[in-house]
Amino acid sequence: MTDILHRVGIKSSPDEVFKALTTREGLAAWWTSNTQGDGKVGGMLKFRFSAAGSEIGGFDMKVLELQPTKLVLWQVVDGPQEWIGTKIRFDLKQSGDHTIVLFKHQEWKEAVEFMYHCSTKWAYFLLGLKAGLEGGTATPYPEDEKISNWG
Amino acid sequence: MTDILHRVGIKSSPDEVFKALTTREGLAAWWTSNTQGDGKVGGMLKFRFSAAGSEIGGFDMKVLELQPTKLVLWQVVDGPQEWIGTKIRFDLKQSGDHTIVLFKHQEWKEAVEFMYHCSTKWAYFLLGLKAGLEGGTATPYPEDEKISNWG
Repeated sequence: MTDILHRVGIKSSPDEVFKALTTREGLAAWWTSNTQGDGKVGGMLKFRFSAAGSEIGGFDMKVLELQPTKLVLWQVVDGPQEWIGTKIRFDLKQSGDHTIVLFKHQEWKEAVEFMYHCSTKWAYFLLGLKAGLEGGTATPYPEDEKISNWG
Repeated sequence: MTDILHRVGIKSSPDEVFKALTTREGLAAWWTSNTQGDGKVGGMLKFRFSAAGSEIGGFDMKVLELQPTKLVLWQVVDGPQEWIGTKIRFDLKQSGDHTIVLFKHQEWKEAVEFMYHCSTKWAYFLLGLKAGLEGGTATPYPEDEKISNWG
């Protein structure tokens, strides 16, 4: 088992960051504009990367746990084989004028090359989340930078 | 033991990417403008993040292995306690018009919060390496974005 880890500090309140991780509108503003579903506990979130006809599919996540302004935990129930069963966890805490986001995409079975790609891409989207909440420009799919031949 | 993984694809030749990872000028153009030392096998590279008076120090790396246009391997011999003894590895391969960089900062003893930060920051600098080699603007220290209260 191996994990992808990231940390960003966002000059925004824990409440605003929590909304960006738990509402359809919030998620669509930084990860993929094609976000559907329900961010409440027990709900399913559907993230799609296909608006422009790309064959890249998407991810279905079950919301396992929420602790308002502190924790968001999802489990991948459908998507690329390597993602199924993995969990995605956001821990939030305040530090001065920053809300710190500790991100963990955990329980990958193997450190396959696709995991390397996803790690870099997560960093990119999390920096977009930060930018968007600080009054700059987030870059959700399909406006995201293509970081390689894999998108 | 746990690792930081990243993958970027750069529209540049393996030779150009290899130079950016093995020469003082190349490294100074994307990681820190205050890079000193020798990128040859057995040499020591000194990366400093203190040009502007920051108390953040830097890293001394011994070059353990080079395979021209294919592999760069360093070991951290001085720097933050969590980094000492870890290895940093770049594997390069060509895929169509991209040079793929597989990056691994390996053998962290524990997944401490600083590791989360370093993972995101590595992604940021590797995307800068890509931008610089593709004719855009790289953002080595001190021009790098501060991604949190930790720099």
